[in-house]
Amino acid sequence: MGRIEEIIKRIGPVDKKLKVEAQKRLDNLTKPQDSLGRLEELAKKVVGITGEKNPSFKNKVIFTMAGDHGVVKEGVSAFPQEVTPQMVYNFIRGGAGINVLARHIGARVIVVDMGVATKIQNAKFKMQNVIDKKIGYGTKNMAKGPAMTREEAIESIEAGIEVFEEEYKKGIDILGLGDMGIGNTTPSSAVTAVITGRPVEEVTGRGTGINDGIFENKIKVIKRAIKLNRPNPKDPIDVLAKVGGFEIGGLAGSFLAAAAHRIPVVTDGFIVTAGALIAFELEPKVKDYIFASHSSVEVGHKAILERMRLRPLLDLDMRLGEGTGACLGISLIEVGVKVLTEMATFESAEVSKSLEEE
Amino acid sequence: MGRIEEIIKRIGPVDKKLKVEAQKRLDNLTKPQDSLGRLEELAKKVVGITGEKNPSFKNKVIFTMAGDHGVVKEGVSAFPQEVTPQMVYNFIRGGAGINVLARHIGARVIVVDMGVATKIQNAKFKMQNVIDKKIGYGTKNMAKGPAMTREEAIESIEAGIEVFEEEYKKGIDILGLGDMGIGNTTPSSAVTAVITGRPVEEVTGRGTGINDGIFENKIKVIKRAIKLNRPNPKDPIDVLAKVGGFEIGGLAGSFLAAAAHRIPVVTDGFIVTAGALIAFELEPKVKDYIFASHSSVEVGHKAILERMRLRPLLDLDMRLGEGTGACLGISLIEVGVKVLTEMATFESAEVSKSLEEE
Repeated sequence: MGRIEEIIKRIGPVDKKLKVEAQKRLDNLTKPQDSLGRLEELAKKVVGITGEKNPSFKNKVIFTMAGDHGVVKEGVSAFPQEVTPQMVYNFIRGGAGINVLARHIGARVIVVDMGVATKIQNAKFKMQNVIDKKIGYGTKNMAKGPAMTREEAIESIEAGIEVFEEEYKKGIDILGLGDMGIGNTTPSSAVTAVITGRPVEEVTGRGTGINDGIFENKIKVIKRAIKLNRPNPKDPIDVLAKVGGFEIGGLAGSFLAAAAHRIPVVTDGFIVTAGALIAFELEPKVKDYIFASHSSVEVGHKAILERMRLRPLLDLDMRLGEGTGACLGISLIEVGVKVLTEMATFESAEVSKSLEEE
Repeated sequence: MGRIEEIIKRIGPVDKKLKVEAQKRLDNLTKPQDSLGRLEELAKKVVGITGEKNPSFKNKVIFTMAGDHGVVKEGVSAFPQEVTPQMVYNFIRGGAGINVLARHIGARVIVVDMGVATKIQNAKFKMQNVIDKKIGYGTKNMAKGPAMTREEAIESIEAGIEVFEEEYKKGIDILGLGDMGIGNTTPSSAVTAVITGRPVEEVTGRGTGINDGIFENKIKVIKRAIKLNRPNPKDPIDVLAKVGGFEIGGLAGSFLAAAAHRIPVVTDGFIVTAGALIAFELEPKVKDYIFASHSSVEVGHKAILERMRLRPLLDLDMRLGEGTGACLGISLIEVGVKVLTEMATFESAEVSKSLEEE
């Protein structure tokens, strides 16, 4: 049995009984029932996932998975490919958006090289926060053939599982996922179009900010890649191999591993959610372990969230990726958990209940 | 010149030049332009308000203003009036929702007794976090006459100014406002209906969670109060006096004072935003200093935000009040500011710019 089947087998149901208990407890806190809205829903979900009555997030972790994409040769992005490794170094030095947001919420950032097109120089920096899981030096150009082999697709998912299991030993109480990779909205749109069956136009956006000409070309390129490679919508590994990316596979693996270990896992923007979609198509139960942090500007993002029936927490017109949205989501989930575990009850605070309840 | 006119005179324009500079700086950080969406907008607004290029929030403060309402005699709430002081004690002991959320963001909570119907017992607790500004032992029943005199309305606004100025000496870099008062969605709906000119039905919700019968009665009571007292929509102090509340007046005063001192001030739910509306009708410039934290379940809340043209940051189905929504808003605003001040630039991180920009 392969590593992926093994981890999928370990994904069990969430604890519904504990969720009911958590609801009772929430209803007895000094506030009108349900008046903290979705914060209460978050707390309940965490209790069900972790099986802990009093969950807490000592170890908040972000995996930012980086990869390059052969399809950039078709001119689908506003930024040159060299930006992928440059941003990886920026992550390591702590100057990127994800570093600022992770510091704000007290999370550690683990950068994973899933397939950056150049060698990440170990000598240049202290590399304790970078994990090397490079499957290849960027995917192949999916407009001319499959982005990767089926073996590489499987390897990329397995690498995501391994990264989780290695870091889990150091402590993970909640996981946020992030991405970096010039051109990676293009495979994300392709994956989304194939799996949801929606037209490419409906699931393709402007990524980092491309003009009309590049945008039209991007749609054409995605259509050509799908037509040429004929990915099988019923086989998520085939979709990942033919029109996906190494970091998308890695993200899918981490979603599966988090669910198997009963750790709440938080989406970010479009690329991470494309990874969640691959995981969901492999095993729909994974959904119960996933929190949708925000709704990004990318249209394809909404299509995936609808398919997975996940309601995002935030809508702040963000489209950076890296895990920045996941950080904001984690902060809200943590607030929800603190409401459950730190608020006084009507009895302990000697507060009268609603007249209707008495 | 009265205290209110004096503070209004001090409210100047925000610094537009610095906002333009902040935008330039944001555009040079290592991310695609505008990709952090509303977080960037928040940072810019704070720079314009404070006049500081590198703002930071060392002192985050929440005022939770409490008051009682004579109109509860008409049976408009699901909770008995005794809950107001009980919750004040809960705030002091740190067991309420606001305490949990304020701790999460590192804010101090100042409870203000603007007009609780019973004496808050100084002997019972260490009272360092409670300020006594009691205008009266609850307002009068607005269904039978004005809620308070014009003098009391003015006093309540002045008290809100004083609270701000006293706490400002101890340090306030950003202020969130909150409320507590059984029955206080009823005056908030009345104030909103009068000032916006909308029908009472359109701006009245179910508060802490009342049933259909109480809800219908609540609408009737508000209509009766407006018909009987005939508040002048062009005179916000008249509206506050006839159908408002002491804590609503106090909140209005703190909004004005924060704007006068160039301190960013964050709304909470419906009651706090009704206080913001009174401040806005007195001096529209106050709006430029206000951040709308969230959109609550109360329908009247949206009506005010539309009138003031404020776009809320969050929509989490919350309706607790106390300042809980303000805490979440402050956290997002702080993230925005940290993005501006902590992220690396393209130059410093040696990252290539967009091909279109070069």
